[in-house]
Amino acid sequence: MEITPVAHIENDFKSKFAVPRQSGLSRIKSKIIFEKEFADRNAIREIEGFSHLWLIWGFSENEYDCKSLTVRPPRLGGNKRVGVFASRSPFRPNGLGLSSVRLEGVEYSGASPVLIVSGADLIDGTPIYDIKPYIKFSDCRADAVSGFAESNGFPLLDVEIKDEHLKIIPESKRSTLFEILKNDPRPAYHSDNKREYGFRFSDFEIKFTVNNNKLEVTDIYAVN
Amino acid sequence: MEITPVAHIENDFKSKFAVPRQSGLSRIKSKIIFEKEFADRNAIREIEGFSHLWLIWGFSENEYDCKSLTVRPPRLGGNKRVGVFASRSPFRPNGLGLSSVRLEGVEYSGASPVLIVSGADLIDGTPIYDIKPYIKFSDCRADAVSGFAESNGFPLLDVEIKDEHLKIIPESKRSTLFEILKNDPRPAYHSDNKREYGFRFSDFEIKFTVNNNKLEVTDIYAVN
Repeated sequence: MEITPVAHIENDFKSKFAVPRQSGLSRIKSKIIFEKEFADRNAIREIEGFSHLWLIWGFSENEYDCKSLTVRPPRLGGNKRVGVFASRSPFRPNGLGLSSVRLEGVEYSGASPVLIVSGADLIDGTPIYDIKPYIKFSDCRADAVSGFAESNGFPLLDVEIKDEHLKIIPESKRSTLFEILKNDPRPAYHSDNKREYGFRFSDFEIKFTVNNNKLEVTDIYAVN
Repeated sequence: MEITPVAHIENDFKSKFAVPRQSGLSRIKSKIIFEKEFADRNAIREIEGFSHLWLIWGFSENEYDCKSLTVRPPRLGGNKRVGVFASRSPFRPNGLGLSSVRLEGVEYSGASPVLIVSGADLIDGTPIYDIKPYIKFSDCRADAVSGFAESNGFPLLDVEIKDEHLKIIPESKRSTLFEILKNDPRPAYHSDNKREYGFRFSDFEIKFTVNNNKLEVTDIYAVN
């Protein structure tokens, strides 16, 4: 079956290392920009009655190259393999992602509606194939048992940023950056105390090291 | 993007009128049969630790012919139009469905695993494009507000089946049939007291009328 994007996401997550590991856990905001065919207020009529939405989206194309039926979830330390259908890993057949987000509001760019959402775990530019309202009485399974994913399981880091670095980031984006850093943006399975890591956030490159539970920013500079 | 089925569903719902209107609301069982490439116990390793699963599946192909940006949800009586992205209607771009089901167990057909699930709202034979574990801490939004879909909203019917009709149905399938009938299997927006409706259930044709809140079965016969 051929599917085509109905929208794409716009935010400050320029690489996958900046993205929170699970949807819904932050108040970091993203915009959902509709493709031309769907950029019409009729397509979202009554959506503001819903507090949350589902996004069905596409992982970047190269993630399912290996065609393995098993994956190694970061949550399990990266040593243990589980079935791809028992995980939310991006390395999966058809490369479809599923995320719940909070609908913060609707804005308009001319006649085109833009959905403001928080908690999205999608990289900037990710194509979205469907948007559905979250229906609590059928989607919220309060009695669910979630195997090895029972709790978030990722410890938060203490974050240290010197003023000389912090001042480079616009004030409006600072709390978002802190939240990303606190959630440990290192690639999975990395824990090299000496290594300097880097990732792109908004229009900036962020460099840092991690020592035990302490993350220290070593440099920040603008990129274009 | 091209997507291909990883599995399909097997159950007694032979037409969409027999399918419950929302996933997760019944204990009616279905089987998930993996396509050959994924029919491997490794692909579901550790899945039994999860009580619920998400299915991303395909509505039958002809449902998005009209390309309207609005739909008329049965929940609103069929008179009021809402945006397609504010509804779970099958008449939507890309024709993707999203349902949570309860994982009742795993069986094997030779070396191929078969997932036994309950609460699926998919017609027999529906292609499934992804199966993901339900992760309670990110998927269950207990604070969600669900607009016009705040409650199930469909009244249950009183069901009357004469013994001469009921005996045609195997005992093991009777409770499922009662549950389908109780949930009003008429096409949306129909409320003609005199009309005889019919639908296919398992290997049987079920005929019935509805008068106010009372559904009376008028005939049952085997089809092949």
